[in-house]
Amino acid sequence: MSKNEAQAREELIDLAADFYDQFAGGEIPEMELPTRTKSNIVFDEDSNVWVYGDRTSKRSANSVSGARKLLKAVYTIEFLSDQLEEGRSSTLRELYYLSESWDNEEAQFNSQDESNQLVEDLEIVSGVTREDFHMRPEESGATLMGPLELREQTRRGEREIHCQEDVGEGGYQIPNNPDMIDFLDHDIDFVLAVETGGMRDRLVENGFDEEYNCLVVHLKGQPARATRRITKRLHDELDLPVVVFTDGDPWSYRIYGSVAYGSIKSAHLSEYLATPEADFVGIQPKDIVEYDLPSDPLGDSDINALESELEDPRFQTDYWEEQIELQLDIGKKSEQQALASRGLDFVTDTYLPERLSDMGVL
Amino acid sequence: MSKNEAQAREELIDLAADFYDQFAGGEIPEMELPTRTKSNIVFDEDSNVWVYGDRTSKRSANSVSGARKLLKAVYTIEFLSDQLEEGRSSTLRELYYLSESWDNEEAQFNSQDESNQLVEDLEIVSGVTREDFHMRPEESGATLMGPLELREQTRRGEREIHCQEDVGEGGYQIPNNPDMIDFLDHDIDFVLAVETGGMRDRLVENGFDEEYNCLVVHLKGQPARATRRITKRLHDELDLPVVVFTDGDPWSYRIYGSVAYGSIKSAHLSEYLATPEADFVGIQPKDIVEYDLPSDPLGDSDINALESELEDPRFQTDYWEEQIELQLDIGKKSEQQALASRGLDFVTDTYLPERLSDMGVL
Repeated sequence: MSKNEAQAREELIDLAADFYDQFAGGEIPEMELPTRTKSNIVFDEDSNVWVYGDRTSKRSANSVSGARKLLKAVYTIEFLSDQLEEGRSSTLRELYYLSESWDNEEAQFNSQDESNQLVEDLEIVSGVTREDFHMRPEESGATLMGPLELREQTRRGEREIHCQEDVGEGGYQIPNNPDMIDFLDHDIDFVLAVETGGMRDRLVENGFDEEYNCLVVHLKGQPARATRRITKRLHDELDLPVVVFTDGDPWSYRIYGSVAYGSIKSAHLSEYLATPEADFVGIQPKDIVEYDLPSDPLGDSDINALESELEDPRFQTDYWEEQIELQLDIGKKSEQQALASRGLDFVTDTYLPERLSDMGVL
Repeated sequence: MSKNEAQAREELIDLAADFYDQFAGGEIPEMELPTRTKSNIVFDEDSNVWVYGDRTSKRSANSVSGARKLLKAVYTIEFLSDQLEEGRSSTLRELYYLSESWDNEEAQFNSQDESNQLVEDLEIVSGVTREDFHMRPEESGATLMGPLELREQTRRGEREIHCQEDVGEGGYQIPNNPDMIDFLDHDIDFVLAVETGGMRDRLVENGFDEEYNCLVVHLKGQPARATRRITKRLHDELDLPVVVFTDGDPWSYRIYGSVAYGSIKSAHLSEYLATPEADFVGIQPKDIVEYDLPSDPLGDSDINALESELEDPRFQTDYWEEQIELQLDIGKKSEQQALASRGLDFVTDTYLPERLSDMGVL
């Protein structure tokens, strides 16, 4: 076991030990958690990420259903602890099915929601992330392409990979747990996180990563945890600027928001996953006007989403208020690939160099 | 330009030359295509794939809208021909936007459906695939892991990659056009195409690819063209058995069907994409019973889908009729990962070895 794994295991066993001590002391065992409802999520102005508020809830064995919850927690702790000791891993879905093999039927999960929530509870109480429990997501992270040499610790030994020279055009596939990666060497000036596959391929085809010493991270729509985690590590450990390039619509601004500020669903992980210093490149509503981009009219759901972003603390800056109000005003949205209306090289020869200079990245 | 590219370009220019000759001969130019409706798709019993039937439709310049269609075709042919000459590529979406820069407004596309359909028309009439036109899909293929050494021709030069030794745990990312790959060397006994990411990761973690000399292809749900194409090439060029491992529900049987027999949407490409020799591993309805797997009840849409599969020529074999009728009878479906109810190693120690022996693959 690595240090991380040993520590994760210890945190889990401490939880079980707490229940034991409560029993031994004649108390009814319980576990205290921040209340995980929307009303108990606050935007932390200092760290610029979403975190849980002060309200807490208790899982107590003072009812049959509460006792069953703690029983399931203890079985899950034992499973995770064994898994870490054996150097194995599993998915959330496997955990749910695996509970059918447990000897105590009362400990088996009734639904996958139940097991998913328990793992999130354990993350919050132990302060250990799911990745350090060796729980894998169902869907993997995306790809990297750029002047980065890394070492990945795989179960088949170490692999040293240069993310331009040792990979095909598809790039380097981010593993489920990007904390298994060490950054060895790099020539990166900035990290460019890109929403769509079509634009990612355009940048790679045009050699943008080579010309500008940029690491292209494909977000693949709403980014997986692994993608957000490696983006944060690139920023924090290599001291690199991170910029996010998406379509110009409210759903894409949320993609930027989840890279930069975290999401409500994983507020307990904001400090592990979010990169508040990440900047937004575009497509800005201003760009739709200035570059006269092909656009589609905003639909009702777009308008509602923009209006709710105006109420969202993540977007309460002069910049975003101006852009969102402009967008509501012009009633249009544009895709990244709409830049192709000026030719296939416009994005790499003109748009990105102009925007990145304006932003002080180039 | 490679031979493929030069040939693709020639086929396109021949099309334009046909229009020219028709004009020169005093005829109204037209283009003849197989009718692309569901009623004109037939299952070819010899090659075991879907192909177009005998009915044809004409795009003729004898109406304004028909003439506009041919004008758009000519502009697109010119664009594709230039693209091939310059060794560049683009996405379908970029083509749509790019048409806004064309000097003739009548040639510009009104919607992306229109440009997508035109590219499909050109594929059919020219007999050249979209990949050989250098049109990239929006979404990329999946990953490979196993004892395969390949050479990928990238625009940055050749890359030689071993799909176990030179990749991280995420595996080798299939490029958009897998025909840029040469197979150099391998130790593969069979190709195992897997539906879900969770199961793909389980097989890799358990070292199934190493123990059984198997190449694990992640299908990622309904597989992309690139994934189906490389699967077919592995079968045809390396003479390898291909088996498909999915969830046990009607939607997953369709995933198997699209790997093995092609899909209605891309019937003109069946011979390029489909692997009729691919066999289905499971989850079989029989497995749900025999291994007593955790299951969910069939919903109405599942039942309808199963019933329509009974009418689908792709599934009119004794094997599939028996399995589908059994499933309707037991009223249950199970996921791949439900095998975890017998422990995390059950799938690699017991289920797959048993099934693959039964099928004569091991």
